[in-house]
Amino acid sequence: MPELRIVLAGYGTVGKALHAILEQDRDRLAAAGIDLKLVAIARREQMMVDANGISLEAARGAWKPGDVIEAMGAVDADVLVEATPTDLQRGQPALGHCKAAFRDGLHVVLANKGPVVVAHQELLAAAKAAGVRVLFEAAVGACIPVLNAHRTALAADEVERVEGILNGTTNFILSRMAMEGSDLDQALREAQALGYAEADPTNDLDGWDAAAKIAILANSLLGRTVSLDDVEVQGIRGISRQAMELATANGYAIRLVAEAARQGPVRVAPRLVARGDPLDVAGVLNAVRFTTRLAGRLTHIGPGAGGRETAAAILADLAALAKDA
Amino acid sequence: MPELRIVLAGYGTVGKALHAILEQDRDRLAAAGIDLKLVAIARREQMMVDANGISLEAARGAWKPGDVIEAMGAVDADVLVEATPTDLQRGQPALGHCKAAFRDGLHVVLANKGPVVVAHQELLAAAKAAGVRVLFEAAVGACIPVLNAHRTALAADEVERVEGILNGTTNFILSRMAMEGSDLDQALREAQALGYAEADPTNDLDGWDAAAKIAILANSLLGRTVSLDDVEVQGIRGISRQAMELATANGYAIRLVAEAARQGPVRVAPRLVARGDPLDVAGVLNAVRFTTRLAGRLTHIGPGAGGRETAAAILADLAALAKDA
Repeated sequence: MPELRIVLAGYGTVGKALHAILEQDRDRLAAAGIDLKLVAIARREQMMVDANGISLEAARGAWKPGDVIEAMGAVDADVLVEATPTDLQRGQPALGHCKAAFRDGLHVVLANKGPVVVAHQELLAAAKAAGVRVLFEAAVGACIPVLNAHRTALAADEVERVEGILNGTTNFILSRMAMEGSDLDQALREAQALGYAEADPTNDLDGWDAAAKIAILANSLLGRTVSLDDVEVQGIRGISRQAMELATANGYAIRLVAEAARQGPVRVAPRLVARGDPLDVAGVLNAVRFTTRLAGRLTHIGPGAGGRETAAAILADLAALAKDA
Repeated sequence: MPELRIVLAGYGTVGKALHAILEQDRDRLAAAGIDLKLVAIARREQMMVDANGISLEAARGAWKPGDVIEAMGAVDADVLVEATPTDLQRGQPALGHCKAAFRDGLHVVLANKGPVVVAHQELLAAAKAAGVRVLFEAAVGACIPVLNAHRTALAADEVERVEGILNGTTNFILSRMAMEGSDLDQALREAQALGYAEADPTNDLDGWDAAAKIAILANSLLGRTVSLDDVEVQGIRGISRQAMELATANGYAIRLVAEAARQGPVRVAPRLVARGDPLDVAGVLNAVRFTTRLAGRLTHIGPGAGGRETAAAILADLAALAKDA
């Protein structure tokens, strides 16, 4: 298979983890017929370009002024990996990066949810018009292969319903409240201290991160065309210690569940989940359950976040492109 | 994509479920570009052949004397679906059917574990020599996409370890023992009454069914070459009501866990699994957990048996062949 030349937009936790994997796993990937070369990186107002490939050591050196668009213009490449910070309202600047990539004939692999939730149809149409592909396994459930599973194992089946624990931060907080008897503020501070919650936890606690992910799943797997505004969202701020104790005493966990079917409301809300149900995952794990026409209910559980895990999902998309190239 | 013409060996629960899906879902599958036609069926000493396709109604009519080999010789076909009863010791007669199919240039899709566990390397080599493919998603974990997931989502990753609850019968029995405080014989009779256990439950209770499945996973995903004799097998007959009560009181479930890594023993044995662990699935569910180099631990949970569910896994393999054809 031919070499796939990559431009990487965003060099935070996920971008750096991907870079490390590309270098450290190069021989293993090559043996699997997956030949990847990182030829440009762009981060806040800086870029680094080398058609011969950028090593981890080189990236510790001097960067030039520049941005993603300039980086794509400065080197021949096949795919843009979009791993800049997510903006759920406007999808920018990532959406602009995607459009520029399509104009240059590059495939796009997104870890960034923003463009997918803001402009799903537009992205697919623009990629199709440009004769390239847009993949975003890493945008939902990090490395849980929800979209890849659909493209392959479920290709002959039909997903009728998707439910999931799609936000690791709130699941960690709810797990701690149940286990420790702590209230939400205590559990939140613990999550922040461990790096599981951001300083501004609004997108997590109020359900918007989960809402963005279920919108993406609904649009990708269920033939829906929903935007973030169409999702009925209720977060976890109203969950009291008393409600948690009552649930625990009756054999239930309280979980922030996102759900969508082929028709009806797309929803994120706290729900009682019976202990032992596959959706009753603990800590920062995510879980996605498909109800399918033929195979019944299939649940996938795995880490919903993490630099290396998200990079693994990006890599799965890059491998799919490399194999089809 | 061209039409894929199917010869079906075995017309029990799984074979009939597949036939029903092929007829009832024909339009949906065609719309997804998957064009499948059942042109021959063979069951105990009888066959039915029709190059124009066999309807459910036709299959209720008169059959001719014949067998799988004759059926394959009587009609042009592209793939043999092997769904005859499993023989874990010799893999027959299914192994003979596979070899005959390869000689005729047919791909093979197996629901039957026998040939895969008895002759994994031989099957792969014979298929390669014939320029065809052999797929067996349905042989392990029914419709849980363990092998398809590996071929796609994990193509760029590396599976380091596989653990699983691979036998629904024993998992049902252990679940009932824990929930009802019943002993193994009571729970077994209940499982038999519900159709979850066979009259002769040896292969389930003594761990041989799970052993066959973990051998297949070890050979397929971990680069091992193990036979059934290489698996260290301990079944569940020794699990007393007292042991179960002790485990439950301490927050554990007893589960029959199959496990394999890239090195070391391949094993099936009862193990304590912490309540809330993704492997702590209830009833006849199966669970498979991959520990991977990049993505961490991924668990897939779903129905481990059932005619329609197993047929769905066969269909996933057929769809993969149709898309590559």
